[in-house]
Amino acid sequence: MLHDLWRVPVVVAPMAGGPSTPELIIAAGGAGALGFLAAGYKTAEAMAGEIEAVRQETDRPFGVNVFVPQLPESEPEVVAAYVASLEPDASRLGVACGEPSWDDDHWNAKIEALLADPPAIVSFTFGCPPAEIVAALRAAGATVAVTVTTPEEAEEAVSAGAECLCLQGFEAGAHRGSFANDDRAGQDWGLLALIAGVGRATDVPLIAAGGIAGPSDVAAVLAAGAVAAQVGTAFLRCPESGAHPAHKAALADPGFTTTAITRAFSGRRARGLVNRFMREHPGAPAAYPQINNATRPLRAAAAGGGDAGGMSLWAGQGFRAAEERPAGEIVERLARGAEHRSR
Amino acid sequence: MLHDLWRVPVVVAPMAGGPSTPELIIAAGGAGALGFLAAGYKTAEAMAGEIEAVRQETDRPFGVNVFVPQLPESEPEVVAAYVASLEPDASRLGVACGEPSWDDDHWNAKIEALLADPPAIVSFTFGCPPAEIVAALRAAGATVAVTVTTPEEAEEAVSAGAECLCLQGFEAGAHRGSFANDDRAGQDWGLLALIAGVGRATDVPLIAAGGIAGPSDVAAVLAAGAVAAQVGTAFLRCPESGAHPAHKAALADPGFTTTAITRAFSGRRARGLVNRFMREHPGAPAAYPQINNATRPLRAAAAGGGDAGGMSLWAGQGFRAAEERPAGEIVERLARGAEHRSR
Repeated sequence: MLHDLWRVPVVVAPMAGGPSTPELIIAAGGAGALGFLAAGYKTAEAMAGEIEAVRQETDRPFGVNVFVPQLPESEPEVVAAYVASLEPDASRLGVACGEPSWDDDHWNAKIEALLADPPAIVSFTFGCPPAEIVAALRAAGATVAVTVTTPEEAEEAVSAGAECLCLQGFEAGAHRGSFANDDRAGQDWGLLALIAGVGRATDVPLIAAGGIAGPSDVAAVLAAGAVAAQVGTAFLRCPESGAHPAHKAALADPGFTTTAITRAFSGRRARGLVNRFMREHPGAPAAYPQINNATRPLRAAAAGGGDAGGMSLWAGQGFRAAEERPAGEIVERLARGAEHRSR
Repeated sequence: MLHDLWRVPVVVAPMAGGPSTPELIIAAGGAGALGFLAAGYKTAEAMAGEIEAVRQETDRPFGVNVFVPQLPESEPEVVAAYVASLEPDASRLGVACGEPSWDDDHWNAKIEALLADPPAIVSFTFGCPPAEIVAALRAAGATVAVTVTTPEEAEEAVSAGAECLCLQGFEAGAHRGSFANDDRAGQDWGLLALIAGVGRATDVPLIAAGGIAGPSDVAAVLAAGAVAAQVGTAFLRCPESGAHPAHKAALADPGFTTTAITRAFSGRRARGLVNRFMREHPGAPAAYPQINNATRPLRAAAAGGGDAGGMSLWAGQGFRAAEERPAGEIVERLARGAEHRSR
């Protein structure tokens, strides 16, 4: 069933916050890959508008990724103290920090919209949806995938009815899809070990994500047992990507040499290029989306000024391979890693 | 040249502190893999004795791994404070903490012994040896490999003359081979991203290590571009392994569910099964081998009492696949992952 979703086993990862435009998903589908719209940070109406925009241009199947909301983790005073520590940045940028408010990212409205008019596949990130929602989406005709980062999360997702798992290795760019926003020891699994560990426990098909940037990486995860490779960062510099120009430029800037995981921007662990803001704010508490809301004006002002040091420059460990080429060409290049398997 | 060192592209990792017995190296070679003696924590004489023991039983090539010493990192007061925090553990075990002394692990004597009578390959861990030592070992007839954990370390090792790199992904069990014992952001690379990142920068052959525990993992790292897979944890439970019985048992104990990186036992970052000692001592400073020397009596007493909660249970992320089988059988199983490549 999954194999009907792509001609080549490449998934263009959902990248919320701008990069995943309808154009990127259309280009991915045109090249035989499976693209995902990113519903995160959007209203249900905006999500539906993007679904419509893709459908007007292509008959290829595509997916939609939805963030699963979580109850607030940290005490308001802890959050407030962190936000206060950002004041010097805010005043330098001439803005005020945003309200560190909690929200559920329009969860119910999105699920209703997807049930009413489902795309080919719906994937979830930041948690496992209730089994009833999984069952309802499947009954409505969508394949349901859950993003997991550990064998334990994989077990929970399969129990809830997930037909497919997106395994996100620790190498992956942007937010960790972990169900819990905590600091427990041992939660970060490398992609290869995660494929093997989850593969021992379940027969559900596995899409592998994290640091995959070239055809040899695709070949590697298929050899490890995945059915497809999910790739995000390698598409960030495409003309179809809506990533900010300063973000695109930073990915190719030799001044950025490595990535790390931080809560500085959003209150949730996410991997990005190591930059000034990340270095200057190492102590952010687990408070998503409160801190994401608080830093939004700062990130917007930094982006407006082209100041990469103050932006969240999400990137996976394979970022150095990201090229400024049309998405279709990148899909073709990645697909070469799958060729020996179909011969 | 490297390919003369093995019949199957499997390297049995050096595992200092007990597991890497001459018997394990002999069995590895007999099955066509390349085994490594672990010179770490030993005198040069003990190392030479093991080399001799292997040679008496086999003509197969084998390697020796040597720890590169580093100057002390942390202030003595910081080290003393951590050691003082271990007193309750020590008194419960009825022992005293060891002296947190620095040593160079008999560096000069080992290099002299290896120059005088070199094995087929010498690998280094915890740093890059000076170019003169690399050149001298090569002139003496040994292949020289350096363990690296980042693209930057890889560049330094190749500049120093390394003919081969052992890429250690973040998934790997036991000590990180990082050149520096610090906490800089972005130092932990997943194995796949590391192979791709280093492969873009150098043509030196790459041996991949970290979380590799089954044939599909071997197939994956070969597909990613490595010339061989280095595997440690999967051999810990072999009869030929000198790992402590409580360590062997813990690897198969469902009570241990994950691994994490800690400085608690040695003052250097190392991955092991998450256990009581690791959880109770999260704040160890960067001070190797001082803290390793301080905790030695505690670890020995815990091991003597079969208390896995107080031992350093080094293990990579693939630990769950470790089987209690002869090493030769495990080599054979892993080698199946390389079969499609020679067809």
